[in-house]
Amino acid sequence: MIKIVLFGSGNVATQLAKAFLKSDAVKIIQVFSRNNSIPFLKNHQIEIINDLQQLKKADIYIIAISDDAIASFSQKIPLKSVLTVHTSGAVSMQAIASEKKGVFYPLQSITKSKKINFKKIPICIEASSKKDRKLLKKLAKSISDNVYKIDSEQRKNLHVAAVFVNNFVNHLYAIAEEICVEKNVPFKILQPLIKETVKKIEKLSPYQAQTGPAKRQDKKTIVKHVELLNEEQQKIYKLLTSSITKKHSKK
Amino acid sequence: MIKIVLFGSGNVATQLAKAFLKSDAVKIIQVFSRNNSIPFLKNHQIEIINDLQQLKKADIYIIAISDDAIASFSQKIPLKSVLTVHTSGAVSMQAIASEKKGVFYPLQSITKSKKINFKKIPICIEASSKKDRKLLKKLAKSISDNVYKIDSEQRKNLHVAAVFVNNFVNHLYAIAEEICVEKNVPFKILQPLIKETVKKIEKLSPYQAQTGPAKRQDKKTIVKHVELLNEEQQKIYKLLTSSITKKHSKK
Repeated sequence: MIKIVLFGSGNVATQLAKAFLKSDAVKIIQVFSRNNSIPFLKNHQIEIINDLQQLKKADIYIIAISDDAIASFSQKIPLKSVLTVHTSGAVSMQAIASEKKGVFYPLQSITKSKKINFKKIPICIEASSKKDRKLLKKLAKSISDNVYKIDSEQRKNLHVAAVFVNNFVNHLYAIAEEICVEKNVPFKILQPLIKETVKKIEKLSPYQAQTGPAKRQDKKTIVKHVELLNEEQQKIYKLLTSSITKKHSKK
Repeated sequence: MIKIVLFGSGNVATQLAKAFLKSDAVKIIQVFSRNNSIPFLKNHQIEIINDLQQLKKADIYIIAISDDAIASFSQKIPLKSVLTVHTSGAVSMQAIASEKKGVFYPLQSITKSKKINFKKIPICIEASSKKDRKLLKKLAKSISDNVYKIDSEQRKNLHVAAVFVNNFVNHLYAIAEEICVEKNVPFKILQPLIKETVKKIEKLSPYQAQTGPAKRQDKKTIVKHVELLNEEQQKIYKLLTSSITKKHSKK
């Protein structure tokens, strides 16, 4: 049984708590929350503290708070000998002030209310010693089937890559929706194509899966498309088109 | 029974032929192919012609050839009284030279070899008369559950929107893959996030679903991200970030 203390009451802390509560291999012995407001934990007889002096010893401390607060908060933890990890994609492991440091980063866009099946969420782990990494791996495996050893440098880059496939992709959906609304076309017409685009890269690499006027350098269609767009949309259309053309004329 | 002649032997012609062959409401009476090379049709006893003088009368002629060739090809069709449609997203209905014109546009990224379930593919129809539209609707319903009446102006815009959610989204996947390869991180780590991003917009509009550093104007993270990217990637990161920020500071 791995004994843990969770620090935080935000989205990641909430979802991790829910997942660990279901696992037989893990016991949450305390949750630290500045404002004590963790409604869903009320039925679970878990001690909630808001004073670090009450902190108990555990196998792992998990700091699931906002990126900016991790470094300063970890300095305040009185027990420096406990393996202490954060859950951020963007913060270096070295931000942790304890002797035994680590990272436990679930790679997903996490909101508090949504039901999450952690089994499929990749968890990226990092630790300063092999022994600690082994313990983190055990913890991660208790809630997810996809556990990866990822160092700080890799994780930073993975975090940017995630912005491309999540935030930026979503923005392209938003632009397509804009175009549809403007012409009174239901956006849901595009849903099957959106799903097909994702399905395709399960078997092909995105490079191989590329199609469209930019790839085949169909200038006539490109000119027609640009004419239909507003200034903001045009900028994005032109930049992505030239980027696709460059990438595919290289090889 | 709707009698049709299909013109073309490319991806769209091939997939439509396969779909119509399965439908009891439709009979393909001829396929026109310049090069006669439609291997999969050999077992189906369908007459393949490469001379328009042999063309039979039918209820609908479907021109499934490349965009640029549609207008000139349709002029060569000797029987001008048959309802004649093309299958393109980008070409106006007026490109058809026949008296009765229409469009039969399946909104999907179609490749020849892949098995396609047409039932879920939206088919956008347009015709110059109500009667012809009714016939096209019947034809479309025989292979798809999602049939939409879309005029040429709407279709042109839908075609651009499709480039955003398909070609451009795929390019963002390709950039994420680039970043992963560079740092020796398996791209498949991002697959669950990619799927979650699509799933989210089944319930929320893309505008509501937006998250990330650009939306919350987290300049510290943005600066860190930009430093990790190459010049080409930076251009795209910066433009999409500023576009998201603009869109979400408006309201």
